[in-house]
Amino acid sequence: MELPRAVRVREVGPRDGFQNEPEVIATDDKVRLVDALARTGLPRIEVTSFVRADVIPQLADAREVLSRVDIPEAVERSVLIPNERGLEAAFAVRERFDGVSVFLSASETHNAKNVNRSVAESLDGLRRVLPRAAEAGLRCTAVIATSFGCPYEGEVPEDRVFELARALADAGATEVGFGDTTGMANPAQVGRFFARAGRELGDGVELTAHFHNTRGAGLANVLAALQAGCASFESSFGELGGCPVPAGATGNIATEDLVSMLHEMGVETGVALPALLAAARDVAGVLGRPLGSHTLVAGPVDWRRG
Amino acid sequence: MELPRAVRVREVGPRDGFQNEPEVIATDDKVRLVDALARTGLPRIEVTSFVRADVIPQLADAREVLSRVDIPEAVERSVLIPNERGLEAAFAVRERFDGVSVFLSASETHNAKNVNRSVAESLDGLRRVLPRAAEAGLRCTAVIATSFGCPYEGEVPEDRVFELARALADAGATEVGFGDTTGMANPAQVGRFFARAGRELGDGVELTAHFHNTRGAGLANVLAALQAGCASFESSFGELGGCPVPAGATGNIATEDLVSMLHEMGVETGVALPALLAAARDVAGVLGRPLGSHTLVAGPVDWRRG
Repeated sequence: MELPRAVRVREVGPRDGFQNEPEVIATDDKVRLVDALARTGLPRIEVTSFVRADVIPQLADAREVLSRVDIPEAVERSVLIPNERGLEAAFAVRERFDGVSVFLSASETHNAKNVNRSVAESLDGLRRVLPRAAEAGLRCTAVIATSFGCPYEGEVPEDRVFELARALADAGATEVGFGDTTGMANPAQVGRFFARAGRELGDGVELTAHFHNTRGAGLANVLAALQAGCASFESSFGELGGCPVPAGATGNIATEDLVSMLHEMGVETGVALPALLAAARDVAGVLGRPLGSHTLVAGPVDWRRG
Repeated sequence: MELPRAVRVREVGPRDGFQNEPEVIATDDKVRLVDALARTGLPRIEVTSFVRADVIPQLADAREVLSRVDIPEAVERSVLIPNERGLEAAFAVRERFDGVSVFLSASETHNAKNVNRSVAESLDGLRRVLPRAAEAGLRCTAVIATSFGCPYEGEVPEDRVFELARALADAGATEVGFGDTTGMANPAQVGRFFARAGRELGDGVELTAHFHNTRGAGLANVLAALQAGCASFESSFGELGGCPVPAGATGNIATEDLVSMLHEMGVETGVALPALLAAARDVAGVLGRPLGSHTLVAGPVDWRRG
């Protein structure tokens, strides 16, 4: 089986995961959890988001979290930016992060329900945000939600996703993420998609897969993406996360399940799985409920360590 | 991506799943659930097991369940048989099932902890059971537990697993299942394994994969097996199941997650997913706790149905 020798994992739990929690998590807990994640060997962490506090009260402490976390220099710290106003707010603590992630949906209905704009309006906005972020020396990632299907519209034309990816790269994104926002992707589709993406977009743009485990096929989709050459993934510790719309859209793939599978196949991540499991146990305690992560319950395949 | 056009799924929840439930399930509930599963289009159901009632009280009603269920003729009904005494007990209701499954572990320590015998002793026993079952006109499946790794011994030599598979086929098994009993398999290993199995054993013996989702990679292992030509799987509705030893070994892959992924990739199973989800909802109600199945929570990728 042809697989990349190593992959890069971005932990998005502190943003994507926390954002979907109904109860506001204490800032102290967030800081401790991010600091723990930052010491697992994960190369990239999405720390928070500069969204409107009245829209997502959970992330109202973005500036405080960013100011207080203590993240080793080798770890890329990014923040999610919904629009120009968010970018302005983030600039107030510019020295506390290295990159931004921006987003739009590939399907009109999901974009409208998520951010109340047409896809064209979102793209126009990102064409203003991305160059400003790049000028400020920030690494720019653009995530295209509903890349593999829309819960409202069904099939999303692959051509449309690729057109948006090119437009975002042209606007300054050096990394494009493809989000399976509500877990509609299947491995056959993912294999075709990333093979084409590598051919058509891979030159100079990093391609990232962002899968959800909504119907249990998250790691099967990872395998198909790996086989098609994808070597960059986003995931969430504890299988936290989901999407604000529609209601009930369940979690991202669990970082610890992802790392476990990759390591068992000999694919390097740089992550110390026991440290990652400790962080996942910590967040399970903070949230006070069982999480979707399987390796968190079962523990690692640890006989290799004797 | 090369995939089989269609696969056969054996539902093992009523045996493998129920066996691992600490509270005894009412026989009425079992009968209703098996009857529901038998009307989903599943081609094969492992209905119960003739184990000693004092060892597994949960399955003490094996004979009553078998006598009462009403399963369409097209569905293969099998029972798990631990030894000759179990076969005798099953013969009392011979007309109520079509096949037997027998088992041993590929690793000595797991076999000893599971059935208190050496692997050679187990194999000797199966060499008596399988011919008698075949003589009685029963279809014979032999499952090799810990085929992909042992929680006590670590790596299990592939040569050993293949040697046992050949011995079981020689003794009369027309189907050999390879069990990832505690979820230690990874897709790279599974791909290599089933490619070799197809070459060395595939002639006249049906090869079946039995994965657990212990660390979240269950469906990724299914994908790797499919790509290597495997077209027969065992799974458990609701992600029920596990293994008696070691404690905490979590569930089989969920049949509804398996079927969802297969259908999304265009691989036929004959199963009506909504009917299967109804059965999984029923068992979740009976057990009164959240189950591991993802599609049970999220529902199918249903936009295709409009």
